[in-house]
Amino acid sequence: MAVGTQGAVKLLTPDEVRGVGIEVVLANAYHLMLRPGAQVVEALGGLARFSGWDGPTTTDSGGFQIFSQPELVRVSEEGVRFTSHIDGARVFLSPERAVEVQGAIGADLVMCLDECLPYPVERSRAAESLERTLRWAARCREAHARAGRAQALFGIVQGATYRDLREEAAERLVEIGFDGYAIGGLSVGEGPAVLREVLDWTAPRLPEGRLRYLMGAGTPEDLLAAIGLGVDLFDCVLPTRNGRSATAFTRFGRLRLRNARHARDDSPVEEGCDCPCCKRFSRGYLRHLFLAGEGTAGALLSLHNLRFYARLMHEARRAICGSRFASFCREFLAGLASGGSAGE
Amino acid sequence: MAVGTQGAVKLLTPDEVRGVGIEVVLANAYHLMLRPGAQVVEALGGLARFSGWDGPTTTDSGGFQIFSQPELVRVSEEGVRFTSHIDGARVFLSPERAVEVQGAIGADLVMCLDECLPYPVERSRAAESLERTLRWAARCREAHARAGRAQALFGIVQGATYRDLREEAAERLVEIGFDGYAIGGLSVGEGPAVLREVLDWTAPRLPEGRLRYLMGAGTPEDLLAAIGLGVDLFDCVLPTRNGRSATAFTRFGRLRLRNARHARDDSPVEEGCDCPCCKRFSRGYLRHLFLAGEGTAGALLSLHNLRFYARLMHEARRAICGSRFASFCREFLAGLASGGSAGE
Repeated sequence: MAVGTQGAVKLLTPDEVRGVGIEVVLANAYHLMLRPGAQVVEALGGLARFSGWDGPTTTDSGGFQIFSQPELVRVSEEGVRFTSHIDGARVFLSPERAVEVQGAIGADLVMCLDECLPYPVERSRAAESLERTLRWAARCREAHARAGRAQALFGIVQGATYRDLREEAAERLVEIGFDGYAIGGLSVGEGPAVLREVLDWTAPRLPEGRLRYLMGAGTPEDLLAAIGLGVDLFDCVLPTRNGRSATAFTRFGRLRLRNARHARDDSPVEEGCDCPCCKRFSRGYLRHLFLAGEGTAGALLSLHNLRFYARLMHEARRAICGSRFASFCREFLAGLASGGSAGE
Repeated sequence: MAVGTQGAVKLLTPDEVRGVGIEVVLANAYHLMLRPGAQVVEALGGLARFSGWDGPTTTDSGGFQIFSQPELVRVSEEGVRFTSHIDGARVFLSPERAVEVQGAIGADLVMCLDECLPYPVERSRAAESLERTLRWAARCREAHARAGRAQALFGIVQGATYRDLREEAAERLVEIGFDGYAIGGLSVGEGPAVLREVLDWTAPRLPEGRLRYLMGAGTPEDLLAAIGLGVDLFDCVLPTRNGRSATAFTRFGRLRLRNARHARDDSPVEEGCDCPCCKRFSRGYLRHLFLAGEGTAGALLSLHNLRFYARLMHEARRAICGSRFASFCREFLAGLASGGSAGE
């Protein structure tokens, strides 16, 4: 999934995003409820029509965004009270309200309201928070059933970096029963080793026939590891954020386009890439545009990076279908580490 | 022509610009010589290949940009010494050097180095400056002939707002003989009435069989007036600059997309427009993106505005060929003034 937090993938149009092989766009209910308001999105046809995306859409409930500003937040059993980052308004979000808001926004796939914790966090706090998140999950499930909308609802596995909490979270969410399962509370500074450990505990406890979605991750290496552990779905700001800040993902590792050695380099960002950026533009041109502060550069490199991620996912799927995922990973990781002719 | 000062139309890709019917892109030799350097553009294949534009390209010599920072400039007969706005380096540009730089950058159409004056300016200063600009034009013509590059070179008519100076400038440039003629020193605050007056003095003195190019103008009303006075070619930042700042040009007048009345408006920016913005997105969505600071909004509205300008030019050409330009203008201007269902 490409990240379109406020209803647009930054600097890009839906046609461009679709053109590089992205199938799903993720928006954020927290952002959209504050601006322009869920009712406005609904009045303008719901998220897909509103944002011109003619494929599946998803919204995150906003738990992650709300709890990333802890000084603005007060949690109670009922829900979470927070201050809008836009105008300072006091806002209340309960599990029921999160389902209602996401119902109005109208994505195909919506998420439970969860409490997201920082890393690291003590066990007692993680355990207490997890219990609340699980009670909220049950309330979301109920509100969603009552609303009767044609939206898939995913539960979110929390439990910080504690094995028993993660295992319990997975099992109790499966008991409640969701259309699919997200793994949350990661990519918050725990590092790749801990990320993998948590996935290793969690993913096997989620039903095979349901989608597993790792929220907010990650690097190409993280994605390959997660796919190997059974994760199906990802969202990550890295391809677009790095694209805007002049860092390219390539098969041969990362490339910093502002580097002086690209000044007269006529080669594409990634040899053999079929994206609109690599088909037409040189590293030298992109470097110039980045140094000149031209937004076109961020748009072009976002397209390349999204294409890189989309290709990674498509190739991983083909490798799995061909029973050669392990060798695919080895080769891909060797390429990333090679530096090759392109990396740095 | 769309303006791509630093080698890119702001926020857009060449495919997008081409897609709305723009045929020529104008870059600025002053900007490109300072960054990335004319030799870099040349090494990367010249302006068209460098910037991925597969149609005709133009560069302005940079006179306008240099003289718009008068405190950084010292003019002599030899040329102009100025301070780079990027790194404070001292740079010297002579007519010969302007031709050489534009030769390396490699656009299809290049411009003479001219001195641009502010508005208003006393007659004596305008007359003295014009004499120098005419001597520089002759030197550019000579340097261009010596270089033997397959580039068209245009002379630039100056003379501020003095009829006899403008007339003399036109006549003496025609004596020197150029591939086409630009009318410069306008759109600097003189207002539409003076602009028309200057065109009225100047354009008839330029040969019919050569392109006439009005530099840096203007509003849709200015373009129609100039076309009526025999101008063929325009460049203007208004469609893209206004696009980025949320102002749309439409057949029914201008539209400010940040206006609260568009919040739940499901209609396109301009009913009946065939641009990628109007085909898919509502005013309500664009308003949201502008308020949320999403660059996608500026890209989409730039596309609409470029399409509006391209359509204006195409329709004017058809009207001229059909000997109905006067009635076309009347109707078009009535639409712009109507406010209609769309204007404000």
